[in-house]
Amino acid sequence: MKCGRFITLEGGEGVGKSTQVRALADALRARGLEVVTTREPGGSDGAEAIRRLLLEGGEERWSAPAEALLFAAARTDHVDKLVRPAIQSGKWVLSDRFIDSSLAYQGGAGGLGIEAVRAINAFGIEGWFPDRTLLLLHPDGAERARARDGDESDRIGGRPASYHDAVEQAFRDIAAAEPDRVRLIDASGSPEDVTERLLGTLEDLL
Amino acid sequence: MKCGRFITLEGGEGVGKSTQVRALADALRARGLEVVTTREPGGSDGAEAIRRLLLEGGEERWSAPAEALLFAAARTDHVDKLVRPAIQSGKWVLSDRFIDSSLAYQGGAGGLGIEAVRAINAFGIEGWFPDRTLLLLHPDGAERARARDGDESDRIGGRPASYHDAVEQAFRDIAAAEPDRVRLIDASGSPEDVTERLLGTLEDLL
Ligand SMILES: Nc1ncnc2c1ncn2[C@@H]1O[C@H](COP(=O)(O)OP(=O)(O)OP(=O)(O)O)[C@@H](O)[C@H]1O
Ligand SMILES: Nc1ncnc2c1ncn2[C@@H]1O[C@H](COP(=O)(O)OP(=O)(O)OP(=O)(O)O)[C@@H](O)[C@H]1O
Ligand SMILES: [Mg+2]
Ligand SMILES: [Mg+2]
Repeated sequence: MKCGRFITLEGGEGVGKSTQVRALADALRARGLEVVTTREPGGSDGAEAIRRLLLEGGEERWSAPAEALLFAAARTDHVDKLVRPAIQSGKWVLSDRFIDSSLAYQGGAGGLGIEAVRAINAFGIEGWFPDRTLLLLHPDGAERARARDGDESDRIGGRPASYHDAVEQAFRDIAAAEPDRVRLIDASGSPEDVTERLLGTLEDLL
Repeated sequence: MKCGRFITLEGGEGVGKSTQVRALADALRARGLEVVTTREPGGSDGAEAIRRLLLEGGEERWSAPAEALLFAAARTDHVDKLVRPAIQSGKWVLSDRFIDSSLAYQGGAGGLGIEAVRAINAFGIEGWFPDRTLLLLHPDGAERARARDGDESDRIGGRPASYHDAVEQAFRDIAAAEPDRVRLIDASGSPEDVTERLLGTLEDLL
């Protein structure tokens, strides 16, 4: 049986990741592929349980390194229980955020270091890095996030512009270091235009 | 204020670690030191919560790498919330098991690799490796563990002799790689004799 592919969508707040995961899944299904969509943090029972642990208590509950290890453990379970079995059974998996969000938010903007956070994640997911990562970049992404209602988007979206700039710079650094895996996508324009751009960067995998 | 010291006791099942943590704490207190005793897994609220997560569900609940990351996260919280504050306030901390148990059980005997498990733990605890680690070795340790009643000791203690041999070999490998930190202690004879041997290896720290 042919193995499926593992595609992740990444980017800052409100840049259109969730919208495009749905649209891209539809487009790939229209080409006859079996597609599973998922998202982080979470995506499996164990990862959700770890996420609840992370949300309990206040800001001081977990140090930054403890939090990064818990996220890496959650991601490992996500791969073990959902991503790897789906791909091994021939499906394509599209994930709304994955390892690069940890690298950019905690490693880059959060100060733990991109390479150090990559190492603890690589320990857990080993060979299951994405086949391709689509990094959505939008000039008004941060503003759009702040304008939205919502709970989680407020907690992170409400941080200062300098924080969002650091996240975007970290995402760009990761893309520069892994140009084959990570592709920069202009996320401006209509959702349909963006979906076409995403599909264009997957042609060699189809 | 003078910083305290961080001492860990390690070794296989039933070798006398818990007995000696108590005895050594008493001996150090008799010399006028403030001593805190603790143990792993656990030792802080966050670590205990992670431990409960690890105990939920069956054998298939967590893969070996996911489990190792959860233990590293728990250990990080243990250091953040208990070990580091105590040492910084001038106390000595004695821990019944710490990082070397992960290295020996999961890294060595469990097949994840001692260096890989060391790396994910070092990410969390950074400079807070023990000042000294006392590795208790007893010729009848494994037999003693298997002979005992009890819950946890049964689950691990009931594994075959080859497993316990692999754990002991891993402990010896770690000690050989870090001879200044990790000291081999003959754990045979009376508890009082063993405590004297332990104290003897701490003279330079007192
Ligand atoms: N191409 C687009 N043009 C205009 N608005 C869009 C476009 N794509 C998405 N939106 C809208 O922008 C908002 C954010 O989109 P979406 O939730 O997909 O972003 P996201 O990257 O998943 O955000 P978050 O990181 O907060 O989950 C939504 O209200 C969505 O309808
Ligand atoms: N020096 C000794 N001589 C004889 N018996 C001992 C000695 N030290 C401890 N024991 C006994 O051996 C048993 C195991 O000791 P202890 O619980 O301290 O070991 P442990 O290393 O903490 O084991 P575990 O890893 O299972 O927690 C206990 O019943 C204890 O009373
Ligand atoms: Mg979203
Ligand atoms: Mg004990």
